[in-house]
Amino acid sequence: MSTRKMILDLDTGIDDSMALTYAVGDPAIDLIGVVASYGNIEAERAAVNTLKILDLLGASSVPVFIGETHPLSEDYVRMQVSADIHGENGIGDVTLPDPSGAVQDQNGVDFMIESAQKYGNDLTIVPTGPLTNLAKAIKQAPKAMAKVGNVTLMGGALTVPGNVTPVAEANINQDAISANEVFTSNLNINMVGLDVTLRTLLTKKETQQWRDSGTTAGKKMADIVDFYINIYADMYPELGGCSLHDPLAVGVAVDPSFVKFIDMNMVVTTKPDAYYARTIGDKNRLDDPNTNVKVAVAVNSKRYLKEFMKNMNNAFATM
Amino acid sequence: MSTRKMILDLDTGIDDSMALTYAVGDPAIDLIGVVASYGNIEAERAAVNTLKILDLLGASSVPVFIGETHPLSEDYVRMQVSADIHGENGIGDVTLPDPSGAVQDQNGVDFMIESAQKYGNDLTIVPTGPLTNLAKAIKQAPKAMAKVGNVTLMGGALTVPGNVTPVAEANINQDAISANEVFTSNLNINMVGLDVTLRTLLTKKETQQWRDSGTTAGKKMADIVDFYINIYADMYPELGGCSLHDPLAVGVAVDPSFVKFIDMNMVVTTKPDAYYARTIGDKNRLDDPNTNVKVAVAVNSKRYLKEFMKNMNNAFATM
Repeated sequence: MSTRKMILDLDTGIDDSMALTYAVGDPAIDLIGVVASYGNIEAERAAVNTLKILDLLGASSVPVFIGETHPLSEDYVRMQVSADIHGENGIGDVTLPDPSGAVQDQNGVDFMIESAQKYGNDLTIVPTGPLTNLAKAIKQAPKAMAKVGNVTLMGGALTVPGNVTPVAEANINQDAISANEVFTSNLNINMVGLDVTLRTLLTKKETQQWRDSGTTAGKKMADIVDFYINIYADMYPELGGCSLHDPLAVGVAVDPSFVKFIDMNMVVTTKPDAYYARTIGDKNRLDDPNTNVKVAVAVNSKRYLKEFMKNMNNAFATM
Repeated sequence: MSTRKMILDLDTGIDDSMALTYAVGDPAIDLIGVVASYGNIEAERAAVNTLKILDLLGASSVPVFIGETHPLSEDYVRMQVSADIHGENGIGDVTLPDPSGAVQDQNGVDFMIESAQKYGNDLTIVPTGPLTNLAKAIKQAPKAMAKVGNVTLMGGALTVPGNVTPVAEANINQDAISANEVFTSNLNINMVGLDVTLRTLLTKKETQQWRDSGTTAGKKMADIVDFYINIYADMYPELGGCSLHDPLAVGVAVDPSFVKFIDMNMVVTTKPDAYYARTIGDKNRLDDPNTNVKVAVAVNSKRYLKEFMKNMNNAFATM
């Protein structure tokens, strides 16, 4: 099987932890590194969470980097809702052993650029948090980054309301200026936003299967994700499960046929008014046929969930 | 050729005049009546404009009705921008002879209901203004209206900004409450919004062809539409022409393959805040497979323009 070089850019986070597990478990993915971002939690703690999850999965050889620690033009203040959804420690307040390894010295943005130069079209980058690292990499090394085969990001909302305001999704809202630089760049972008992630749900029926598997990793991940499912039951009772936001982006990066795309030229609204951080068609480039963003607007969630469970179980079984 | 029974619900209006001409000229359309609505202009004046255009096209036998004269829950006040875009008289301040006939006594809403009962699935309704008449018809006769084969409306904006606010399109903005009743009804709705109409443009190159045709109707329509093209050059210089908003809806009603649709369950935001009159996915029905709205998100504008010109020329040639 041919594998795909992938960098995850995670603000780890419960669904980020699932995205990481999915990537470790999917034989089609060669996970060459994880960049830890601020977002659901501070970048330093996201890095520690990432190291812990990799240990749990027996994948300690994957290098972990720290990228930008705050938005391009402001300070980072963790939102209370992030602590509510992901737990104070970011992984559902579940205790995992201290990491066996350490964060790399190289900056995460430099690692992205170096990898872009090295792998070019064979590289896929999957950001599941704010787009600050990617925007900085594009600014620092536009030519190298333009060669990246594909960016499949979790973020934005086009055909459904946002989750921070009626127009803003949380990842975009963290740093709309960086998001706009990414969306208006010449990179090939797949947007996996709330349009499809709110339709891709996990329930305790599935986490129970992880417990039943008898693996330590499966049990711990079930504890972590059940925290998230409980929060979703309170916050989004209409959904009937928790959204697989970040792992869906990883899945789509490998197999775009899980979703239906529409081709667009987009912008992110950066003016600080009621429409801040909206991901929307660029009315000045409506007729430009060189679209750079594919927006996922429908998903085969049943088929995806099957693949999700397969890869999660793969990852749990390695220990 | 099999023809389709069609009712146009117009706030006539310049692009409404083009929609009317297209419908008269398209041999696939059996135009059984026009309901005049408030919107671009008062309903009474929209009716007079409709009668004048029908006379111009030698189609005086098409009956014209007046529907609701104001939104469901407020007074109608013509927006200054409507006068700016469509001219004080609604048809580019071009003078046409007084109508040869008169408006029907029957109310436009009653005519819609009667036609729904009579033709059921064979009936297509194309509203190109506020959705007040359709909402009222659905409220008065839900069973009969549920049998209507198809509603193809010009209105809304899903993947692009609105033209009244960043989220609101003018027709929806006129009466968001009625629009929401239509969008959440069980009718089969095709939404032809700014997503596609801003990409379907007419220039003076085409109106010059109407002048060159030597017909009175072609010359008058060129005068009317040039007013609109001039306004567009001022207001939307980035487009490079005027939008074929309303005639595109008529074209799509006959041949949906002009556009690419996505299937959705939608709502219209009726809360009077910054998001008023937004057409957006209903987060409470995201996973309901019984979607009732097809939203046009891409258009083959080249092929459509060809068909548009053919039908316009057909209509001009009848006199």
